[in-house]
Amino acid sequence: MYFFYSNLIVDNPNDLSKIIILDKFESNHCLNVLRYKEKDKIKVVDGYGNLYEGKIGEIKKNQCFINVYNIFENYMKRDYYVHIAIAPTKNHDRLEWFVEKAIELGIDEISFIKCSRSLRTKIRMNRIQKVAITAMKQTLKAYIPKINDIISFNDFLKLHQNNFGYICHLEEDNKKSLLDYRNRFNVESSYVLIGPEGDFSQEEIECAVDNNVSSISLGDNRLRTETAGVAVCHLINLINV
Amino acid sequence: MYFFYSNLIVDNPNDLSKIIILDKFESNHCLNVLRYKEKDKIKVVDGYGNLYEGKIGEIKKNQCFINVYNIFENYMKRDYYVHIAIAPTKNHDRLEWFVEKAIELGIDEISFIKCSRSLRTKIRMNRIQKVAITAMKQTLKAYIPKINDIISFNDFLKLHQNNFGYICHLEEDNKKSLLDYRNRFNVESSYVLIGPEGDFSQEEIECAVDNNVSSISLGDNRLRTETAGVAVCHLINLINV
Repeated sequence: MYFFYSNLIVDNPNDLSKIIILDKFESNHCLNVLRYKEKDKIKVVDGYGNLYEGKIGEIKKNQCFINVYNIFENYMKRDYYVHIAIAPTKNHDRLEWFVEKAIELGIDEISFIKCSRSLRTKIRMNRIQKVAITAMKQTLKAYIPKINDIISFNDFLKLHQNNFGYICHLEEDNKKSLLDYRNRFNVESSYVLIGPEGDFSQEEIECAVDNNVSSISLGDNRLRTETAGVAVCHLINLINV
Repeated sequence: MYFFYSNLIVDNPNDLSKIIILDKFESNHCLNVLRYKEKDKIKVVDGYGNLYEGKIGEIKKNQCFINVYNIFENYMKRDYYVHIAIAPTKNHDRLEWFVEKAIELGIDEISFIKCSRSLRTKIRMNRIQKVAITAMKQTLKAYIPKINDIISFNDFLKLHQNNFGYICHLEEDNKKSLLDYRNRFNVESSYVLIGPEGDFSQEEIECAVDNNVSSISLGDNRLRTETAGVAVCHLINLINV
């Protein structure tokens, strides 16, 4: 099974059906790499949760036009919401790896936060979006998570002050895990904060706790930022199944 | 903090202390990259759970000789045992990534298993050992997990018939998770089986169940082999904390 991606979906002027147009990149992959031909059946996702089944109708200027005969809305939609706010790693590859794995494990929203010990304060959003689309296709999902550009830790807290928040940190007195909150976790408005290399500062942890964010631990091992992100993502999915 | 690695540890002929010799690779890293000098303090791990503190005594033929003044045995040892048996991925990089992340999360033993749908039946054990040593140093651990070369799925089951086993698979009727077994899990002799791309075959699952291996699910998302391995590794560590 292979999913193509397109967000160019138009009405068929002849009837009530839809036509999907694959861009040059996807068309090239479809025609020249995977060697699809006219009238072949094909599956396309739009990144908004819809899966389309169709047949290749026309090939014009090396672009595929697909006649849709079936639409699955909210394909594989979860009934809970996973939102991770993460301090980006210095190494951009590790960040991209986190995004890829999070989509594989299931995620709805990714926020980037600037912390006092952050070593990176800019995100290549174009690159992250591309990674997200590829990961969605590879893992046969129909939905690209909402990905928010970087804002400061304090602004993030203010923006989400009405939501349930959790902060992962390494302070000694922090021994609760997400599992202890499993009964409370399946609300749409919750999020988990993951800190930078070197952890959140004491002030940040105190500020979060003052904002009713709950402290959680991911165990006794000191994890890299991106590993912590992946671990949390799996855990939320697991406790909500 | 930086850990060096050496398994060449000899008795000091002059007293009861130990001397550690760094090999050419580690010596080069120590002297030329990190620019340590004679009499500098240094930390070395041996891969068997011992952490040594010492001072650089001599530098002969570009090799460091370290006078040990402190030994921590069983450094950061866990009181439970994590053993994952995994069908290697076709792509060797993904396998190495699993080994790296598993050591970061905490693992004691890794076995490779050949399944009916396995796309890879040979492991570059030298390469895996190197990755393991690097990961141990990077994540400030003193212990290299036991890494077993590949054997068939059936041989593995026979070899471990007296141990508690768990098998992760995607069959519909499989809805228990490791969390449901958390009270039973902290025994030294348990292991978790992770299948190849395309999952375990029906026969393999039946054979495992006949051998008293318990079926577990990692949630509703179809995970890549190496992602499943990392998720399980984190979970076992978390439920044992």
